[in-house]
Amino acid sequence: LLTDFGRRDYFVAAMKGVILSSNPNAQLIDISHEIPPQDIEAAAFTLVAAYPSFSAGTIHLVVVDPGVGSTRRAIIVNASDQFFVGPDNGIFSYIIDREPSACVFEITNRSYFRQPISKTFHGRDIFAPVAAVLAAGTKPEELGKTITDPVQLQPLTPIHLDDGRLRARIIHIDSFGNCVTNLTENDLTPELIAAGARMYVKGRLIRKFRQYFAEAEDGETLFGVWGSAGFLEIASRNRSAAKLLKARRGDTVTVSGV
Amino acid sequence: LLTDFGRRDYFVAAMKGVILSSNPNAQLIDISHEIPPQDIEAAAFTLVAAYPSFSAGTIHLVVVDPGVGSTRRAIIVNASDQFFVGPDNGIFSYIIDREPSACVFEITNRSYFRQPISKTFHGRDIFAPVAAVLAAGTKPEELGKTITDPVQLQPLTPIHLDDGRLRARIIHIDSFGNCVTNLTENDLTPELIAAGARMYVKGRLIRKFRQYFAEAEDGETLFGVWGSAGFLEIASRNRSAAKLLKARRGDTVTVSGV
Amino acid sequence: LLTDFGRRDYFVAAMKGVILSSNPNAQLIDISHEIPPQDIEAAAFTLVAAYPSFSAGTIHLVVVDPGVGSTRRAIIVNASDQFFVGPDNGIFSYIIDREPSACVFEITNRSYFRQPISKTFHGRDIFAPVAAVLAAGTKPEELGKTITDPVQLQPLTPIHLDDGRLRARIIHIDSFGNCVTNLTENDLTPELIAAGARMYVKGRLIRKFRQYFAEAEDGETLFGVWGSAGFLEIASRNRSAAKLLKARRGDTVTVSGV
Repeated sequence: LLTDFGRRDYFVAAMKGVILSSNPNAQLIDISHEIPPQDIEAAAFTLVAAYPSFSAGTIHLVVVDPGVGSTRRAIIVNASDQFFVGPDNGIFSYIIDREPSACVFEITNRSYFRQPISKTFHGRDIFAPVAAVLAAGTKPEELGKTITDPVQLQPLTPIHLDDGRLRARIIHIDSFGNCVTNLTENDLTPELIAAGARMYVKGRLIRKFRQYFAEAEDGETLFGVWGSAGFLEIASRNRSAAKLLKARRGDTVTVSGV
Repeated sequence: LLTDFGRRDYFVAAMKGVILSSNPNAQLIDISHEIPPQDIEAAAFTLVAAYPSFSAGTIHLVVVDPGVGSTRRAIIVNASDQFFVGPDNGIFSYIIDREPSACVFEITNRSYFRQPISKTFHGRDIFAPVAAVLAAGTKPEELGKTITDPVQLQPLTPIHLDDGRLRARIIHIDSFGNCVTNLTENDLTPELIAAGARMYVKGRLIRKFRQYFAEAEDGETLFGVWGSAGFLEIASRNRSAAKLLKARRGDTVTVSGV
Repeated sequence: LLTDFGRRDYFVAAMKGVILSSNPNAQLIDISHEIPPQDIEAAAFTLVAAYPSFSAGTIHLVVVDPGVGSTRRAIIVNASDQFFVGPDNGIFSYIIDREPSACVFEITNRSYFRQPISKTFHGRDIFAPVAAVLAAGTKPEELGKTITDPVQLQPLTPIHLDDGRLRARIIHIDSFGNCVTNLTENDLTPELIAAGARMYVKGRLIRKFRQYFAEAEDGETLFGVWGSAGFLEIASRNRSAAKLLKARRGDTVTVSGV
């Protein structure tokens, strides 16, 4: 489960109660309920960072849903032998980018929905019961038809420019101020780094790449480091790189020498 | 589990360890541990909002217990085929109001208690072990005798006044400032609303009733909307209705034309 | 699971996903993920307070790990028929003090580690998979050899001074400002209290010992009370004893008349 509901109210528990009512043996795991309210990109990042640790057959129930009650679609993504259930607003965007064989279904079969359907709480009344029946073995084909036009955020993959450079971006800023880029070791291999690849962000050149934080020198201003989600992060030893750079999510990162 | 223990300390885990020691297969679900300290009414509201999502056989372990160590009774409520275990201080009040067939037992059989019983942590030493044996099939009759005088908060049901009006009240104010009343669709049917029912709170007249938040016009000052817990909420589009009204929990809401 | 990861990010979920991938039937219980960042002593206290509520066979996965990526060892402690898995930095120190038959293993068998091993997230890549295989029945002997020199914090047990006094200390200050000492009822028996044992802390004499908080008189300045973790706490009725005493963790508490 991944939501922006927080943990003070009864919302998360209501979803869990609905799942267990249908499927008493479900294993319920919280990814986070503290996604900033309605922050679809933060949910998308958290999900793409977490899902590789889960096994085949896992159902991800993701409810960050500013459009609840409107006409936005409800979808299931089947990718990497896992299922992802939630609103069609881009939260599964990075999963779809990562998994070329991803298949997306619009949920149209209302027979499993909880009745009456609240206008304000589809997490409990639509998404939780759908997740429960998927976990119990119902095929996504029984819940709706495939679609080919899910809402997508900006692509997760950096863009190869005509001049040979790579245009990446900051996709997440964590609580320490580290700026997570969308560069992976496929984009920026050890060979390219050894050959002198350079990274530019907010007009600053970054040439140092570290294996882990403690490897950086004390007070080292800005360096790249591979984060545990598999992305290159721009960090500063004992300081917030985001503050230092005045960086925001979405800012461009350019790499030359690749 | 529903408590005011927070999540920083070992308290919740200690209760879970005790339950699992007795009943290793228990499914443990957190409703919330962030009830404001000792706020019995907040716990009562959260519980009545959550329990309809849970199935028959669920045991609710609720520990908001300002009187721990004193002579307040420990009780089990059996209602809606679920059990509710905790101190007798009103936390189960709304459940008892909602479920006319509710049966209340005082816990007097000490044989299942954890020894030694801490004076300050009955959640771990009394309520958790009792919840565990109930989950394993022990009958409430084996734990104590029925009582007919549990501590009750103000009734959950609005009062019909002699002049035909309905006197309701604000039972909860959520984190967005929405004022949750104790009016349900049984009290204020679509027919009554269509016929022009009016609602007064803090000297203000409210005539607009919306199906969901996004249906209200931008900046619409005050309107009624059905919340996901089944109660009418007084809301303001993009603002805190509670601040606008200077409303507090317990404030009277009067409905005429019913 | 006990960590300082917080609940906003994907870190805790990643560990759980890894455990469930290896061991789908594991019961996963959170002790807390809100240990102050890198606060080894807070983790050690929380663990020693929680573990007696858990049954034989429990695996405690504890990741408060300022030295991640460095050469600090990874260990398993086998004590009280439970296992404790985490970095060798003192977090299991109080468990080892409490359980004389504790046996400590260094984790050297890399065959169960998740690949590739992140330099920054051993919780997911080393400790979680080891916890999972222990839960599935793998013997600690298969994971590495015993060691006799685990990192230890100051001893959990008070020191008997030559003059007959007992030198204890404050091992934890809780969110109410209660100062938890390392004195247990073995150190300060009811008989000794009845015979007039006195406690000194920060130059103040404390002679009153209460069974529970409500037993103290309103505004009673400073008194001792037995907390639910089995330790004597220095408390003040309706005030923060820590503020009143300007006390910090580690401050000495002396007991005479013992």
